[in-house]
Amino acid sequence: MKVPLTVQLKDSKLYIINQTKLPLEEEIIITDDYERIAVAIEKLEVRGAPAIGVTAAYALALSFKIIQKENIVGHFDKVFKRLASTRPTAVNLFNALDEMRNTFEQFKNDNSLYERMIERAVLIHDNDIKLCDAIATNGLSIFKKKCRVLTHCNAGSLATGGNGTAVNVIRHAFENGFIEHVYVDETRPLFQGSRLTAWELKQAGIPFSINTDSAAAFLMQQGKVDLVITGSDRIAVNGDAANKIGTYNLAVLCNYHKIPFYIAAPTTTIDKKCSEGSQIKIELRDKKELTIIGNKEITDQDFPAYCPAFDVTPNNLISAIITEKQLHKPPFDFSNV
Amino acid sequence: MKVPLTVQLKDSKLYIINQTKLPLEEEIIITDDYERIAVAIEKLEVRGAPAIGVTAAYALALSFKIIQKENIVGHFDKVFKRLASTRPTAVNLFNALDEMRNTFEQFKNDNSLYERMIERAVLIHDNDIKLCDAIATNGLSIFKKKCRVLTHCNAGSLATGGNGTAVNVIRHAFENGFIEHVYVDETRPLFQGSRLTAWELKQAGIPFSINTDSAAAFLMQQGKVDLVITGSDRIAVNGDAANKIGTYNLAVLCNYHKIPFYIAAPTTTIDKKCSEGSQIKIELRDKKELTIIGNKEITDQDFPAYCPAFDVTPNNLISAIITEKQLHKPPFDFSNV
Repeated sequence: MKVPLTVQLKDSKLYIINQTKLPLEEEIIITDDYERIAVAIEKLEVRGAPAIGVTAAYALALSFKIIQKENIVGHFDKVFKRLASTRPTAVNLFNALDEMRNTFEQFKNDNSLYERMIERAVLIHDNDIKLCDAIATNGLSIFKKKCRVLTHCNAGSLATGGNGTAVNVIRHAFENGFIEHVYVDETRPLFQGSRLTAWELKQAGIPFSINTDSAAAFLMQQGKVDLVITGSDRIAVNGDAANKIGTYNLAVLCNYHKIPFYIAAPTTTIDKKCSEGSQIKIELRDKKELTIIGNKEITDQDFPAYCPAFDVTPNNLISAIITEKQLHKPPFDFSNV
Repeated sequence: MKVPLTVQLKDSKLYIINQTKLPLEEEIIITDDYERIAVAIEKLEVRGAPAIGVTAAYALALSFKIIQKENIVGHFDKVFKRLASTRPTAVNLFNALDEMRNTFEQFKNDNSLYERMIERAVLIHDNDIKLCDAIATNGLSIFKKKCRVLTHCNAGSLATGGNGTAVNVIRHAFENGFIEHVYVDETRPLFQGSRLTAWELKQAGIPFSINTDSAAAFLMQQGKVDLVITGSDRIAVNGDAANKIGTYNLAVLCNYHKIPFYIAAPTTTIDKKCSEGSQIKIELRDKKELTIIGNKEITDQDFPAYCPAFDVTPNNLISAIITEKQLHKPPFDFSNV
C-alpha cells in the first residue's frame, strides 16, 4: 500500500512534500535552511502535529551543519526560538524541540554535535513511525463490523513522520476488512480533507467521498455514519483534545446521533502541563484564509472575520482516545501516561 | 438603510443582480428571455426561495411579450415546464408558477393576456415585499436584550423580492437596538454567507464577522451566540424545514448549547402537500461545487463527492417559525395557515 513520504532526510537535506500544492501538484521542497523550514511550517507546507515536531527537529539539527564554534549557544537559542514561534497549538513541536535541547546540552562541547543532533532528529522521526503503527494496531478494536467512518482534516501520513494517526487506524481497519466507506470533511478553510486525506485514501484504494463540513450532520441524520475518528494537536491530562476547527462540532453531532467519537494520537500529543482544555492556546489565523483561496478572491477582503485554526473537544464527548500504548477509555487521566 | 434590488422589472425587461459575482462585482443581467432567466436560476445567479418564485413569475410573463396566437397553450406549457425544472427544493417556485397558471387560464383568450400576466407577476413581487416586512415585525419579539445572532446562508433581500426573511428580522431588530453582533457562516460550498449576507450587513451598517461553518460550534461553546436564525426553502405542514445544507447542523448545535433556533419564512414557503420533512426532495448538486471555486481548482476533479444543497431540520429542534402571520410556536400545524 503506497504511503506518501511527508518529510525525509537525504544527503544532509530535508525533503518536504509541499502540502499546500497537493493533490494538484507534487512539489518537493529541498532545503537545509532552518528559516525556510520555519516558513514551511508557518505556511502549512508541512502540517499535522507529529509531522511539525519531526520537521522542526530536523531543522534544528540541520542548522548546526556549518555553525561556527564561538556562538553556539546563542545560535541554538535563536533557532529554537524561531522554530517554536511558528505554530502555537501543536504540543509535539515543543516536545520535539525540548528533546533536541537535551541532546544539544549533552553534546554542545563535542566535535560530533551536528551528527548527534541529526541522530536525535532521526530517532524522533523513527519513533513517530513506530507510534503510528502501534496506534493503528490499538485502534482495530473499535471496529466490530464493516463501518462507514467519517473523518475531519488530515491525520494521515502527511500529518506525521509515519503512516498517520486517525487515517492509519482507518488504513489498518481497511486491510482487516472493516471499512465500507470513508466520508471526508473537506475541512475549511484549508481543505486538508478534500485535498490531503482524499489523496491518501485514493492512493490506498479505500472507498471514500468528500463533503462540505456542514453536510456531516445530514449524513449522520440519514444513518450513514457508524463512527467518527480524528487526530489531535494537543491533549490535556484530563482528555480534553484540541484539533482542527470543526472537530468539536463533530463531537457534538456524534453525541446527538449516538455515534462514537474517537481521537487517535501518539502520547507525544499529551501536554502534561495542561490539566484541562481551557488552558490550550488556540491559534487565530489570518482572515485571508476565509476570503482568498489560492490567488482567487472569494469575497471582500475588508469583511471582518473570525478564523480560529483549532477548537477543543471536552473529554465527556470522547468515546476513547487511541494512543500507541492502548485504547484509553473515559474517565481519562494522562498524568502518568 | 440601503437595501439591494435583487430583481426588478423595468421597460419590459428583467434586471437581475448577478449573485454569483457579488460582492466583488455588481453585474446586472438585463433580459426578457425566459431561457436566460431559467439559466440564471439554475446557476444561482438569482437564488433564495422567495426570489426564485418572483423571478420565475416574471420570466413566464415576459415570455408572452411577442408570442403568436396559435400556439399559446403549448407555449405556456413549455415555458412552465422549463422554469419548473430549474431547482427542485424551493416550493415558492412552484407556488408562483401555479399562480401564473391561474392568470393564464383566466385570460388566455384575451388580447390583454401579456399585460395580465405581467400584472400578476408584479402582484407576486409586491406581495413578497409585504411578507418580508411583516416577518420582520413579527420577529421582533424573539429579542429580549441586545443579542449576538448567528445566521447561515443568505436569507436577506437578495433571497427575496423584498427586504429578506431572517436578515430582515435582524435588520429590524438592529433598528430597534437589539443587535450587538451578527456571526455569518460563510456557507460552503457557494459562500452565500461570506459573500451575500456579509455584503448586505455591511451596507446596512450592522456589526458582523464571517466564520467557517464549522466554527459555529466553537462560538457557541464560548457563549458568544444568543440565538440562531435562518430562512427556509420549504416547510412541511408539521414544521420540518428544509434550508441550505448546514442548517440542520446548527439546529443540533443549538439544542446541545441550549440556544434558541428560529426559522423566518413567508407562508408561501409552506408546502401543504408535504405532511413531514421526509417527503421533501433534496437537490444534489454537481461535485464541481466542492472541487472548483470560480475557475480555481482546489482539489482533484476525479475525487468522489457528496453535494446536497439542502438539509431538513426536524420540528423538534425549532424554537419558533416566524411567518408574516405570526410567531408560530411548537407543536407546529400549518395545515390551516
